[in-house]
Amino acid sequence: MVQEAGPNVSRFKPGDRVGVGTYVNSCKECEYCNDREEVHCEKGSVFTFNAIDLDGTITKGGYSSYIVVHERYCFMIPDDYPLALAAPLLCAGITVYNPMMRHGMNQPGKSLGVIGLGGLGHMAVKFGKAFGLKVTVFSTSISKKEEALGVLGADNFVVSSDQEQMKALSKSLDFIVDTASGDHPFDPYMSLLKTAGVLVLVGFPSEVKFSPASLILGMRTVSGSITGGTKVTQEMLDFCAAKKIYPEIELIPIDYANEALERVVKRDVKYRFVIDIENSLK
Amino acid sequence: MVQEAGPNVSRFKPGDRVGVGTYVNSCKECEYCNDREEVHCEKGSVFTFNAIDLDGTITKGGYSSYIVVHERYCFMIPDDYPLALAAPLLCAGITVYNPMMRHGMNQPGKSLGVIGLGGLGHMAVKFGKAFGLKVTVFSTSISKKEEALGVLGADNFVVSSDQEQMKALSKSLDFIVDTASGDHPFDPYMSLLKTAGVLVLVGFPSEVKFSPASLILGMRTVSGSITGGTKVTQEMLDFCAAKKIYPEIELIPIDYANEALERVVKRDVKYRFVIDIENSLK
Repeated sequence: MVQEAGPNVSRFKPGDRVGVGTYVNSCKECEYCNDREEVHCEKGSVFTFNAIDLDGTITKGGYSSYIVVHERYCFMIPDDYPLALAAPLLCAGITVYNPMMRHGMNQPGKSLGVIGLGGLGHMAVKFGKAFGLKVTVFSTSISKKEEALGVLGADNFVVSSDQEQMKALSKSLDFIVDTASGDHPFDPYMSLLKTAGVLVLVGFPSEVKFSPASLILGMRTVSGSITGGTKVTQEMLDFCAAKKIYPEIELIPIDYANEALERVVKRDVKYRFVIDIENSLK
Repeated sequence: MVQEAGPNVSRFKPGDRVGVGTYVNSCKECEYCNDREEVHCEKGSVFTFNAIDLDGTITKGGYSSYIVVHERYCFMIPDDYPLALAAPLLCAGITVYNPMMRHGMNQPGKSLGVIGLGGLGHMAVKFGKAFGLKVTVFSTSISKKEEALGVLGADNFVVSSDQEQMKALSKSLDFIVDTASGDHPFDPYMSLLKTAGVLVLVGFPSEVKFSPASLILGMRTVSGSITGGTKVTQEMLDFCAAKKIYPEIELIPIDYANEALERVVKRDVKYRFVIDIENSLK
């Protein structure tokens, strides 16, 4: 919540419900800043955590009661949207929403594959359903099936090692959002894309490797993306409020942080921990 | 030139100047055929050479005085366009023209990199200039510099092993058309693309491999393409005639074919051999 606003602040006033994302500054002059694609600022955007700000200070992120930030990098959280649920939207949410919009995935009736069901993947499923897509989740583990279909609303679940299931989906998908950060082969997934299909990579495996045939013969596209500028971020927040899209989170006090970190390493979280700073640091 | 036309042929009459490309049949019923993207036919397009046609016969290509083909897979060569020069357009030409149009490379003032200066690459340079792009040619060999700049009209020439020249172009290109079929690293070229830049692969290396960072951090795209449907192919022919875009060829008689093949292996051709069947098989 806004505590104080400087004299030149026009968009916010004390009491407004706001959020800050993964970057808190940029040059404000280059073509990308002018397009409100500040994360791609030519001089580099300043990350919210452990980065050097334009004035030489080190950014310290959100593990604090307050943060001082230029209004440009501050987002309005819609009135009825729970603040704790808004937090993951500003990283996991925008990371999948931005490329989904950029590649035209908001076309009802088209089909979407989502690789990996973690913080990014579960949001890709939710956005996919909100866009009216037929959503298939690919996971290495059958244990996520019930969650994917029952809780998240996916239409189809495939264990990626099941070659028969994979083969049955050959050339059937318009889009894939690949959120897996573990190393995985790309050719089997690319063969599931229709002609001119698009795979968007938002995970971070150690390398991307595939046969040129996977790309060329089907006129397919592989594209990458990282979070998003301030314009599309605010649009996403408003979209989530309008469509009642909520990330699945586990709200924890700050003194649970170390245990939470261990559980993150073990992938034991559905799907994001959110630290309740307000009540933890009282 | 058309010799005879069947009773149901409406687009051509005897005496018309025509060409046939890399495929001569398709199902004519699927969504791709309906979109005149026949090369992506769901049942597979029938290649012009050494393929099995829908009636079970083996296709024998263009090394013959005549070919019998459905009018759909036949293209009108504009009146003033030399037939010998039209031949490479129907393979090399369309292979680069199609993805260049699909990815919006016909925007004057934008910048294009062309990797490799062979049959495909030299056409990419010519189309790039016709579209009003600033064209940089990347080659492993300085020997092609004069040709690239003087004959083909490129604006810039870079020996790809020259790290200083490569570094100077960092994040400067809107598009790259990669025509190299030899194995080559992708990361150095992808780092030359601006944010949201597009690399189109039309060559056929043994694999495509790059760091996810090359894709993700700059929101970049890698896309593949293979020739094109009948609609865009005819458009390209008309465009080439209107803009006087001519491939560079060496016209040879058929009894020179074996020697030509040896020279192709040695990459000793600027830039395509065209066999003069009409005068060879008299």
